[in-house]
Amino acid sequence: MERQSRTTSPDMRERDYDNRDSERDFPIDESHALIASNKVEGTAVYNRAGDRLGSIHNFMVGKQSGKVEYAVLTFGGFLGMGGNYYPLPWKMLNYDTDQGGYVVDIDEDDLDKAPSYREGAEPEFDRTYATTVYGYYGLPY
Amino acid sequence: MERQSRTTSPDMRERDYDNRDSERDFPIDESHALIASNKVEGTAVYNRAGDRLGSIHNFMVGKQSGKVEYAVLTFGGFLGMGGNYYPLPWKMLNYDTDQGGYVVDIDEDDLDKAPSYREGAEPEFDRTYATTVYGYYGLPY
Repeated sequence: MERQSRTTSPDMRERDYDNRDSERDFPIDESHALIASNKVEGTAVYNRAGDRLGSIHNFMVGKQSGKVEYAVLTFGGFLGMGGNYYPLPWKMLNYDTDQGGYVVDIDEDDLDKAPSYREGAEPEFDRTYATTVYGYYGLPY
Repeated sequence: MERQSRTTSPDMRERDYDNRDSERDFPIDESHALIASNKVEGTAVYNRAGDRLGSIHNFMVGKQSGKVEYAVLTFGGFLGMGGNYYPLPWKMLNYDTDQGGYVVDIDEDDLDKAPSYREGAEPEFDRTYATTVYGYYGLPY
């Protein structure tokens, strides 16, 4: 696949963002403004330094609101089993066409201390938990 | 699994709704207010008469907004391949613990004429399309 050079022009960045589908090997399942849930799941996540942090396991949607509250980053474990799960506020994820994955502004030390859970020990995803998670990343809930 | 009798009391219905996880065989991946994306995918969809219409293939999320705009119903095809895809406004889906799936207020004749697409022929999920789909089901976009 041809690798396009990046540019810092805001216009171009916006285009890169909207263009993400053409950079990936999955069937195109959505267009400009929307992304398919099954395309987000499994996508790699990198930090700003380019280190691979893990991948998106799934994401959590408000049953009534239809709003995605967290994308859940996972790493460790084997074949998706037994890893640790880190809920990230959806707005932290930015797709990077060069990396072929999401880039989040977290370094690995911060991630170590971030709210997380193990398989089978999921938290109550209530407002208290949301405030904790969003607060950890300096975002309002 | 023990089958609970239904009740029409609003309180009880609300509890049924929030209780849905305990009625299912999937690992519990979320709690009251939120549902995990990978738990929605594959869930059966019924009409009000109890006929199975198909299942949820995936759902479409606004990249920027984090808002789920459609849950995509599929039926026909084989092992998830080659079927038809019917985008439904998220708010049309109501989980029914007795059915073990979502119930939507559409009859099969209406579904036949509903906006749909085949695999590999996905529409532009733009505002025009959204207005068409939401309009078909009598909902504002």
